Amino acid sequence: MRLATLLGPDLKALQADPEALREAFREFHPEDVAELLDDLPPKDVAELLKALPTEMAADFLERLPVEKQHDIVELLEDRDAVELLTEMDPDDRADFIEELDDHEQKAILEKLGEADPEIVEETQELLRFDPYTAGGLMTTEYVGLAPETKVWEAIEEVRRHAREGEAETVYYIYVVGYGDKLLGVVSLRDLILSEPAQALADIMTEKVVKVSATTEQEEVARIIARYDLAAVPVVDDEHEELLGVVTVDDVVDVVIEEATEDAQRMGGMVPLDESYFATGFFELVWKRGIWLVLLFFGQFLTATVMESNEAALATMVELAIFIPLIISTGGNAGSQSSTLIIRALSVGEASPRDWHRILGREVLMGVALGLLVAGIGFMRAYFAGDRVEPLELGLTVGVSIVAVVITATVVGSMVPLLMRRAGLDPAVSSTPFIASLVDVLGLLVYFAVARAIVGSFVH
Amino acid sequence: MRLATLLGPDLKALQADPEALREAFREFHPEDVAELLDDLPPKDVAELLKALPTEMAADFLERLPVEKQHDIVELLEDRDAVELLTEMDPDDRADFIEELDDHEQKAILEKLGEADPEIVEETQELLRFDPYTAGGLMTTEYVGLAPETKVWEAIEEVRRHAREGEAETVYYIYVVGYGDKLLGVVSLRDLILSEPAQALADIMTEKVVKVSATTEQEEVARIIARYDLAAVPVVDDEHEELLGVVTVDDVVDVVIEEATEDAQRMGGMVPLDESYFATGFFELVWKRGIWLVLLFFGQFLTATVMESNEAALATMVELAIFIPLIISTGGNAGSQSSTLIIRALSVGEASPRDWHRILGREVLMGVALGLLVAGIGFMRAYFAGDRVEPLELGLTVGVSIVAVVITATVVGSMVPLLMRRAGLDPAVSSTPFIASLVDVLGLLVYFAVARAIVGSFVH
Repeated sequence: MRLATLLGPDLKALQADPEALREAFREFHPEDVAELLDDLPPKDVAELLKALPTEMAADFLERLPVEKQHDIVELLEDRDAVELLTEMDPDDRADFIEELDDHEQKAILEKLGEADPEIVEETQELLRFDPYTAGGLMTTEYVGLAPETKVWEAIEEVRRHAREGEAETVYYIYVVGYGDKLLGVVSLRDLILSEPAQALADIMTEKVVKVSATTEQEEVARIIARYDLAAVPVVDDEHEELLGVVTVDDVVDVVIEEATEDAQRMGGMVPLDESYFATGFFELVWKRGIWLVLLFFGQFLTATVMESNEAALATMVELAIFIPLIISTGGNAGSQSSTLIIRALSVGEASPRDWHRILGREVLMGVALGLLVAGIGFMRAYFAGDRVEPLELGLTVGVSIVAVVITATVVGSMVPLLMRRAGLDPAVSSTPFIASLVDVLGLLVYFAVARAIVGSFVH
Repeated sequence: MRLATLLGPDLKALQADPEALREAFREFHPEDVAELLDDLPPKDVAELLKALPTEMAADFLERLPVEKQHDIVELLEDRDAVELLTEMDPDDRADFIEELDDHEQKAILEKLGEADPEIVEETQELLRFDPYTAGGLMTTEYVGLAPETKVWEAIEEVRRHAREGEAETVYYIYVVGYGDKLLGVVSLRDLILSEPAQALADIMTEKVVKVSATTEQEEVARIIARYDLAAVPVVDDEHEELLGVVTVDDVVDVVIEEATEDAQRMGGMVPLDESYFATGFFELVWKRGIWLVLLFFGQFLTATVMESNEAALATMVELAIFIPLIISTGGNAGSQSSTLIIRALSVGEASPRDWHRILGREVLMGVALGLLVAGIGFMRAYFAGDRVEPLELGLTVGVSIVAVVITATVVGSMVPLLMRRAGLDPAVSSTPFIASLVDVLGLLVYFAVARAIVGSFVH
């Protein structure tokens, strides 16, 4: 049976027979079911979830976008909603509650508290942290045991956790001391290799790669990738208290999300919180419009430069012809440099301290690329059409291109370094911002070169 | 002791005492050691590795960039080199050999064959696949067992594999039938939860999420991320034969690498194979220059459009003033659209089939954004300076901006869809390419609008 047909007209019939319904759903991966449920109206999803065992329903619900989760849960009776939320993974539950307004948060936490006060405590613990940090990303479901625990006891404990579906990852066992201080880690692999009577203290690795709860999610991803970890423990800055665990599968999502946000910032807009289609039209107008207008005001400078050279343009209108060509070439060279440096900063290959190495390289690069393109530009200007002063125009275009490309590689590489140095995100609208800056500088260079060359020929 | 001091002047002293040397290194994560070794000359690294136990040396070596690995191994005696390569992870070894020329490949495989013919077979199996596919990414070290294996036997087998360091991941056990046909999967967690006398066939999951050896690495990453997997099995297309396993930690690297390559393509250059600093100057000139020159030729069209409107420019030189402003705004709006669509395509949120939804949205977006910016543009042109025909110029600029922004959102969103449809990578140089296209179209629109408006006022 294909999953899509399951959610078609047969759905009503199946709902009458909950046993058949849950059997039918068990055939598919919860992620695939969630994707299809996301296309149904919230009312239909709510009815469907009511007919399923709570655990299964929670498994589907937690994979839907948070907005959709809210729409569905609003349609459920309080008792059903509380049961569902109780069954959700702690980090998904915290995300659900995080996005509610204060009033709703209070109401739902109160109802959850009546059912299970421990869950409220766990959730509030997770809500303390910014969602884009290790604390916001972590789960509190992990296996933490005392150092004197024997290997056989630890295996029993892992079994119990796994059976109750309590620990998202049971592949690492964390060894904790007084006040949950993180002492070491034992992998499940180490565990099954050791003698049953050994104590965890004897087999644990004490050099644990760990992160602080306030570590940014990009940094968490970098650490997990660097050390090839399945999970990384999250500790309190002050007391080294173990607070939770971030697993590698969450990190893959973070890396993809961050790449999209970086691309959108570099593309000159405010990053979207949701997918392209899920983002409302007016939100999109705002997130694109704000930058478009800011950049437009910046571009006013190009008009100002043009105005102040109106006399030159009036005398030699041929000068205008090559303006788009020259400023775009500057924009392209600048965009190459800024892309290279932004990515190098973001994956940790370069830092603002390398500025002199980068500057030296980009100046030489500007000379090389500029000469390459200037040769072609000279010929285009010299030979095309019935020019009055082919040599003057050719030289003006050629020399300008070299100067503009050097300006572009320098500005394109140094602006991201300066932004990072100033504590700003170098990706923020950088490509269009740098292009605008290069446009203005490029025009200034062009007119200066034109005046010098045309002037020298007149004498 | 800090790692950096370990590699300082004390290094020579330590090399005299291999026992102390290996103890000192055992304190640090191999990834951190590799980073520091990467900064030493190959000769020093070669000497150091010779003083270490082969297993530890291989652990460091396989984490260095492949080029550096070659430089180091060249300095070793054949016997040492073969021993080191034998100890490397199969996928790292295959990467090492892949990058050699045919002659060197043959020589090294021959020497490896004398030591252990099985390793040559395993390596050749891996070399069959494109490095950017599941086959190129996978390792052949996995635990594969027959369906009738009992749980207790399976645990013994996992123990043996883990102890010999043979299986990169022992967290999944793959159940294979005749001809290594993949029948199911059992997680280590399932294994420790089951009764020792049960057969794997009774506890395995038969619906295995798997990929083909020829699946592109981005797709593998997407699947692992979607289903939150620790590893995904790789099978032969025809016979469902299990060939290897891709683990999630490799996928995190792939996602980061792909994001960098996409950014570089979008930034208008050929993606680099290595980091910014590791890439040679002339390679960088080539990878940037080729696109800069191609785009420059494309920009010739702007000069052609300008030339054919030389008469209009000569009569009304004020027209030239707003050209950089208008074409840059088009470029910015186009870059927003292309970035949004390229990322949506790359994370699978949109596909070329959605073109009419996207087109409708982007036309409306162009109207909204265009009107927003045009209002400001009109005022800039109307009020600034001592214009002769403020209303004509203001209207020309305002109307052109609306038309150019709509053109830009349409071109910026449709070109990536068309490229994907044609089987090309939509990220390839798209932002500058689209900007150039929008420049040319923008100029055509501008002059057409100017002629219409100025003409109508003259009558």
